[in-house]
Amino acid sequence: MNIPVSREECAALDAVDPLAAFRKEFTLPEGEIYLNGNSLGALPVRTPEVVRRTVEDEWGQGLIRSWNAAGWTDLPYTLGDRIAPLVGAGPGEVVVCDTTSVNLFKVLTAALRLRPGRRTVLGEETSFPTDLYIAEGVTGLFEGGRSVLLPSLDDLDAHLDDSVAAVVLSHVDYRTGVLLDMAEITERVHRAGALMIWDVCHSVGALPIELTACDADFAVGCTYKYLNGGPCAPAFLYAAPRHHAVADQPLTGWFGHAAPFAFQPGYQPAEGIGRFLTSFPSLLALAGLRASLEIWEHVDLAAVRAKSLLMSELFIQQTDGLDLVTPRQAECRGSQVAIRHADGFAVVQAMIERGVISDFRAPDLMRFGFTPLYLSYTDVWDTAQALREVLASGEWREERFGRRGAVT
Amino acid sequence: MNIPVSREECAALDAVDPLAAFRKEFTLPEGEIYLNGNSLGALPVRTPEVVRRTVEDEWGQGLIRSWNAAGWTDLPYTLGDRIAPLVGAGPGEVVVCDTTSVNLFKVLTAALRLRPGRRTVLGEETSFPTDLYIAEGVTGLFEGGRSVLLPSLDDLDAHLDDSVAAVVLSHVDYRTGVLLDMAEITERVHRAGALMIWDVCHSVGALPIELTACDADFAVGCTYKYLNGGPCAPAFLYAAPRHHAVADQPLTGWFGHAAPFAFQPGYQPAEGIGRFLTSFPSLLALAGLRASLEIWEHVDLAAVRAKSLLMSELFIQQTDGLDLVTPRQAECRGSQVAIRHADGFAVVQAMIERGVISDFRAPDLMRFGFTPLYLSYTDVWDTAQALREVLASGEWREERFGRRGAVT
Repeated sequence: MNIPVSREECAALDAVDPLAAFRKEFTLPEGEIYLNGNSLGALPVRTPEVVRRTVEDEWGQGLIRSWNAAGWTDLPYTLGDRIAPLVGAGPGEVVVCDTTSVNLFKVLTAALRLRPGRRTVLGEETSFPTDLYIAEGVTGLFEGGRSVLLPSLDDLDAHLDDSVAAVVLSHVDYRTGVLLDMAEITERVHRAGALMIWDVCHSVGALPIELTACDADFAVGCTYKYLNGGPCAPAFLYAAPRHHAVADQPLTGWFGHAAPFAFQPGYQPAEGIGRFLTSFPSLLALAGLRASLEIWEHVDLAAVRAKSLLMSELFIQQTDGLDLVTPRQAECRGSQVAIRHADGFAVVQAMIERGVISDFRAPDLMRFGFTPLYLSYTDVWDTAQALREVLASGEWREERFGRRGAVT
Repeated sequence: MNIPVSREECAALDAVDPLAAFRKEFTLPEGEIYLNGNSLGALPVRTPEVVRRTVEDEWGQGLIRSWNAAGWTDLPYTLGDRIAPLVGAGPGEVVVCDTTSVNLFKVLTAALRLRPGRRTVLGEETSFPTDLYIAEGVTGLFEGGRSVLLPSLDDLDAHLDDSVAAVVLSHVDYRTGVLLDMAEITERVHRAGALMIWDVCHSVGALPIELTACDADFAVGCTYKYLNGGPCAPAFLYAAPRHHAVADQPLTGWFGHAAPFAFQPGYQPAEGIGRFLTSFPSLLALAGLRASLEIWEHVDLAAVRAKSLLMSELFIQQTDGLDLVTPRQAECRGSQVAIRHADGFAVVQAMIERGVISDFRAPDLMRFGFTPLYLSYTDVWDTAQALREVLASGEWREERFGRRGAVT
């Protein structure tokens, strides 16, 4: 598809956008363009009512009966099954539980146990830090365990020796937006006898993911970014079926037991993906996720990817001349664009004052997240224009935009 | 205080009950008496609006800005500080995070590391099973680690040898309602050189707890029973200040880092209680807890305990002749009463049909939870009468009340 070169061409594309109808599924602040959907996804219109029902009807009136009557007991599985098609997995291969960090702890420990004698975990120094911290936490539990951070993936082969039990990588880099080749890397890691764990936090809902086709061993991801499950909504965990019967994770809480309601001493892991559960996620939190996943049932991920790439191409073209950090090649890009600027923090603040909400990562990255379900080509056009105007006018130099810590 | 011996005397007591005003803080189904507050606490009237605001205003409109603007970032600490007085702890000694199981995993691993050379964890066979399962999971990570389940606490001294790193006990037993002597047991465990971890799920909000005065090392607890935080609301964790600087827990996610927003590789635990955080709880879940803890700021726990004991005394007296499992001595009792009956399941179902909601634990225990904030003495009187009538009439023998699995 041709990249639009005027606001009119953007509007024309919007008029025929097959995803345009999803915009009305989301509530967004009036008069703003929200480009942080890669950090915290927007609120679906239907969510407040689903949450209200959960609070007032299921909890308030149903009380303890709602475990059965409202189907609470099954939610980690039923919601997992709804996420499965978004990551190229089958039913019974994904569960919703805990947080990304806790889930990574589980699968990484299980991975080390599946590769006895191997005690090294490889990660990328630029990954989202919690993954690296958890890798430290896990390897610290194994005699001789160590977590090695690669400055660059170019060093991967050099480190893939027979001490490596597992490799943990982000499918899309949270800062640069670099998208890794899941199939190729997984194959390389497998050839070296190690297991491959993918963090898909920044790709799930942003592009098609093929965990099964790529032969991934495990994956973890969050639901509060592109999936719009709500701030710090419950995370999910994928395990390849070949590991279900043998995976041994240490967070052995009662919901991972084969018979959680038998209340018997002595842990017996559930058959299948259930053994990765520990305890039960908040029902209020699950309500938010339940609501947003209803929308995702109707989304064509190929259309999402096509629009996402055209949006980022458009943005890159319209901000030509700036210090682009995200790859220009479409196949190496997630659904966000990062631009380096020494005063990026102040520039982002000046943009926010204009109603264009993006974010900043120290020391110098401005991040623009493109969410095809609720952003239009015109929004992207306007964002690029605002950025150019802010930079050209120098308004970001005003003192009130001065540097402060950024939280996202 | 004298135990009332008629419905009129109950009503007279209710009329002067200093906690009676709290009843209007809770929404309960019309025409029912809810005795499962020890399993899932009732919905506070104020909660739907706090949750709505969090969803629609903080998430929907504030979006990513709410991390600072709505104070999200501080909630694990600020809510922990609000729970602290309920467990006899000081500011900065309690954090809200994850689930009871996950938090027990953290403190138990930290405890084993604080007692190098000792690899045994003692628990009670009758504890809520998730605690026992987690103890298995943790000890499985240590060479020579083992989790020993005592059939009875009478066996504690015999097992408290120098291999014991930690003892994990429930302050109140989830089935029988037995309340343990926290000070005495903690002292005994300390004398043996081990650390003491208390699970206060069934006592927090039901009676005063004195973690500091009893010299407890760690404690974990939930907020969805007596604290009314909502179904599977976030849990909390207490660590004695003496352990803050040295405790080493392996779930080292980014929110436990000394500088979570610096996004630097290399884990550095936060000073103080923050090092027990892993990642961030759902903001929707926290909203429920935030709302209910507003109520608890105004509650006098001594009054709660006095009313709780009088309620359970009344119930025990009015069900005299049945097979009482809960201790008759007030100081050995939490805020629930368990009665053994071979057909307890059917009896509980027949009670539910009369609008009296209690629950059943296999194989034969009927549990009646007394929540002083929203139950009256008259409610307790009516419950005892209903139980006697159901048993006398034999209505529970009707086929529709037949045995099925109970979920609570």
